Amino acid sequence: MPHIPLPAQLPGITGLLEYRLDTAAPIRELTQILLRGESTLSQGERELIAALVSARNCTNFCEAAHTKAADLLLGDDETARAVKQDIETAPVSEKMKALLQIAALTQQNGRDVTPEAVARAREAGATDREIHDTVLIAALFCLYNKYVDGLATVAPTDPAFYQMLGERITGRGYVRPPGGYPVPTSKAEPMTR
Amino acid sequence: MPHIPLPAQLPGITGLLEYRLDTAAPIRELTQILLRGESTLSQGERELIAALVSARNCTNFCEAAHTKAADLLLGDDETARAVKQDIETAPVSEKMKALLQIAALTQQNGRDVTPEAVARAREAGATDREIHDTVLIAALFCLYNKYVDGLATVAPTDPAFYQMLGERITGRGYVRPPGGYPVPTSKAEPMTR
Repeated sequence: MPHIPLPAQLPGITGLLEYRLDTAAPIRELTQILLRGESTLSQGERELIAALVSARNCTNFCEAAHTKAADLLLGDDETARAVKQDIETAPVSEKMKALLQIAALTQQNGRDVTPEAVARAREAGATDREIHDTVLIAALFCLYNKYVDGLATVAPTDPAFYQMLGERITGRGYVRPPGGYPVPTSKAEPMTR
Repeated sequence: MPHIPLPAQLPGITGLLEYRLDTAAPIRELTQILLRGESTLSQGERELIAALVSARNCTNFCEAAHTKAADLLLGDDETARAVKQDIETAPVSEKMKALLQIAALTQQNGRDVTPEAVARAREAGATDREIHDTVLIAALFCLYNKYVDGLATVAPTDPAFYQMLGERITGRGYVRPPGGYPVPTSKAEPMTR
């Protein structure tokens, strides 16, 4: 049960983003810019960073949502799982391996990001901007994970929920739907649409 | 030395917020709303949360800046230091002790925030909104700390720098100065104004 009253039909981050709309707006905007804005990293690659960091933080809701988003964007359901299991053997580019390692170090502790980890990324072709964005995406998902877990929000166990959520964040992105979320009309429809 | 090229006269977070202005804008806005917007927690109390979380993450720049901001807002230079040393014996209200413990648990791991920790805060008079904001402020400062440390930004050692920065964030707040930061005209004036 969440530590504060949140609508049961809006689990995980979704209820928190409706709880305080004024703080949710810049959080949504930052996410939209970083994960959907112009970048030399694909949207799928950026969702891999989000999924990896959420997995390392053991935040089930975010891990499931961003794994599904990565699956949909990359067109397979193997890559994200492989990245979460072992970055080095995952089917991603050398540049992405180096950037994912930087994300994992950032999740652990910002000071763990060594010059060697950064040099490896640069040798594999990563730009300053890609290194910057990797650290900031990892830091942003630590915010999300701590927000979602720190208030004990609920993570649905039904895979259909994350399929729906993954389709939403790969389709509409991270912007709030105009007018917010519909109130469910029956107990048979408890999920956000 | 930072992992990416940043202007030497803008240490810590200040250079990062100028590096990518589009991502900096919502980060600044979120901070301004949470730390300076309307709240039943005083600005000084909210800066104590920021200082405590930054100290626990060992992010020297943020710890020094928000300790100074708390000092200026609370009118003493004892409280923040006492909070960082031992929340339970610090000269703050029972409600603030409970909220600071929630912030410390959030910094550790969101899942460490127990129903007991939340019940203690509620018994001491904390509202749902105060509990929400405490977790979100703690999560936001984990973002900042990981951003600042993950890119190896420089933390000045001169206390005068943090005095200047503390005065800025307690005066103007977290909004960007119109037109950005002046380029220093000589090596004798390396700090942001």
